[in-house]
Amino acid sequence: MKINAQRLLENLDRYAQIGKMGETGVERIALSKEDQQARDLLKSQMIEAGLDVHVDRMGNMIGIRKGKQDDKPVAFGSHLDTVYAGGRFDGVLGVLAGLELIQTLNDNQIETDKPLALINFTNEEGVRFAPDMMGSHVYAGMADLAEILKSPAYDNANESVGSCLEAIGYAGEMDPGAIQFDAYYELHIEQGPVLELEQIDIGVVEQVQGIYWTRYTVKGEANHAGTTPVYYRKDAGFTAAKLQQYIGEYCRKKEGSVLTTIGSIKFSPDAINIVPDSAMFTLDVRSTNETLLKKAQLEIDEFITETVEGDGLSFEREEMVRFSPVRFPLVMTDSVQTATKSLRLTYKRMPSGAGHDAQMMAHHCPSTMIFIPSVRGISHNIAEYSHDRDVENGANVLLQAVIGRSGIS
Amino acid sequence: MKINAQRLLENLDRYAQIGKMGETGVERIALSKEDQQARDLLKSQMIEAGLDVHVDRMGNMIGIRKGKQDDKPVAFGSHLDTVYAGGRFDGVLGVLAGLELIQTLNDNQIETDKPLALINFTNEEGVRFAPDMMGSHVYAGMADLAEILKSPAYDNANESVGSCLEAIGYAGEMDPGAIQFDAYYELHIEQGPVLELEQIDIGVVEQVQGIYWTRYTVKGEANHAGTTPVYYRKDAGFTAAKLQQYIGEYCRKKEGSVLTTIGSIKFSPDAINIVPDSAMFTLDVRSTNETLLKKAQLEIDEFITETVEGDGLSFEREEMVRFSPVRFPLVMTDSVQTATKSLRLTYKRMPSGAGHDAQMMAHHCPSTMIFIPSVRGISHNIAEYSHDRDVENGANVLLQAVIGRSGIS
Repeated sequence: MKINAQRLLENLDRYAQIGKMGETGVERIALSKEDQQARDLLKSQMIEAGLDVHVDRMGNMIGIRKGKQDDKPVAFGSHLDTVYAGGRFDGVLGVLAGLELIQTLNDNQIETDKPLALINFTNEEGVRFAPDMMGSHVYAGMADLAEILKSPAYDNANESVGSCLEAIGYAGEMDPGAIQFDAYYELHIEQGPVLELEQIDIGVVEQVQGIYWTRYTVKGEANHAGTTPVYYRKDAGFTAAKLQQYIGEYCRKKEGSVLTTIGSIKFSPDAINIVPDSAMFTLDVRSTNETLLKKAQLEIDEFITETVEGDGLSFEREEMVRFSPVRFPLVMTDSVQTATKSLRLTYKRMPSGAGHDAQMMAHHCPSTMIFIPSVRGISHNIAEYSHDRDVENGANVLLQAVIGRSGIS
Repeated sequence: MKINAQRLLENLDRYAQIGKMGETGVERIALSKEDQQARDLLKSQMIEAGLDVHVDRMGNMIGIRKGKQDDKPVAFGSHLDTVYAGGRFDGVLGVLAGLELIQTLNDNQIETDKPLALINFTNEEGVRFAPDMMGSHVYAGMADLAEILKSPAYDNANESVGSCLEAIGYAGEMDPGAIQFDAYYELHIEQGPVLELEQIDIGVVEQVQGIYWTRYTVKGEANHAGTTPVYYRKDAGFTAAKLQQYIGEYCRKKEGSVLTTIGSIKFSPDAINIVPDSAMFTLDVRSTNETLLKKAQLEIDEFITETVEGDGLSFEREEMVRFSPVRFPLVMTDSVQTATKSLRLTYKRMPSGAGHDAQMMAHHCPSTMIFIPSVRGISHNIAEYSHDRDVENGANVLLQAVIGRSGIS
């Protein structure tokens, strides 16, 4: 039994029209009108495929397909939301491959032993509302729903997760976590270059990197760029540049065991002829090894403290995210490996560099992920691309892994 | 003969209410409603003081006081506009001390030999429309009026200098430069810490630093912060940090002969979990020595080219401003020195670190400037402050220098 690749690719293209940006990109921010439109389409397709659709108070959508047994469902899915100027595969692939899996079972009139559950998690990307992986975070009982619903939009303090869920009609009634799953599988693009560079079909995801996000604000003094002698300056930008350079070199020395990124920076007052009195920047640190992750954060914090104090300035530090690394159970990764082998595809056991709903769901039930290659590793970008053949392979591995777990008799 | 310090200080306080920000700050952006309000007040005060008011096509305001001789007027003034979140002295001091000078002559019923001219130049700060020192630039014939009038607002491409001059009612009919001046004096706060640190009353300004402004955009590739191995990154932010650090260290090594400042930086896409594909930053280089100024710009450009290419990235470079250093004539600086000595005040012959209208007017007629101390050197900041006594001293030096030049018989 194989999935219908033509149908899956056409469906991916259909969703890519919702929030289409440029020729290939998609911008479908969580809880936006575009998110609503994609959710409405998914809901109608779930119903058409015979699923019983539940929406929880977090806006997570769960479509249940009955099994022969009254057991916990084997779940799979991902998310429909994208980053700003994102691509057409990140998230939506896992949801639509899951839908395709169900349609394939319908085509073949197969009833699995255990029930199945197709999930679309709310706000995985977290670009407008913090934190990211919000829906799975709450579903797995790792965050307080009432708190999360109050989370304001970055760009509009008058909008909250709760008010936006109401506005798009996806503030459901079910308590998050109310349906207990047997397992969770998530098909996703790699979002990195490894599989393509090594010409491997499938990534069997063993673990997800831990992620620490911290915001630093170096505080100096604003002064006129032409009249303030150098020895009198408290240039927050110059001090921040030293920190940026240290942080950039840090991960280059660690040869892949730790990743450090400064993705955002802002000077104040941000004028060409004024020495900046403030330089805010964000730090993203990741590692699959919690010890190395903590050590990196500590060493960077020490360097920042020493450097800023050495320059006679001060700084503020705000911890935004602290996610520990997650290791998926062998029984789950082996099930993906077995499915991949049965399809005569090549595979590599590998970590995930990005955060995913599966790392949250790992706290709820045995979970794992299936990666397919991303062309040039480009993601979170309108140029994100994966070849048709890889999409098809990924969906077939998902199908085999899921029916291997759920049983067909 | 002395100016009326009480009247001058009260008038300064009156203008400080127009665009007042916080307790001590002022935000009166060129060609804004606040600028219009300040101009209207000045116009009425000029008329009340008996001046014949002219407005040129650049919006420069010139109030003429007749002399005994039909000669070229001795001019003085500065500008009423401020930077964003600016102070209550920068610019407006020179204009209001000039008005006070005229009121003092009126009080004493003195007619000078040469006529006098009080000037308010348009858009000295250049924070919303480029270039800065706009009004004097055009008045001195150093820029093309038609081009300048088309200059768009940084924050709104639909607004131009020309349309905003019309909107506030200061698009005059006189051709800029039509009135030829005998000389130009400008009283200004130092905007740096030198006079205060050295406990000196008056700065006799011999020269103005040359200013080079350049905008650089380092171009890399946007990638996911968690999935892109370090060897695969083209991190525009990391490369920019090396450039920032080099530029910051450059002026620290030059021990005051060259100043370099990075006041503005912007990453794109500017997201915590995306390696930036673009890092734009501005460079401000200043020196009183043109050879050192050119050498600094060249060395920095060479370092940028080598570093960016060495990292496998590319960059764009936009020259925004290239002002050569200006040396004021001895006859002018000596006239200020003589006036200062006659008042038994201490003085220091010094350069100006900031750009001023006087450096443009130096191309039109013999010019110079008079500095008074700035508390802690703070300027372009709502905390900008100068003591009452220094304001009074500066205005008296201006008076003595001007009547020395214009003659009273």
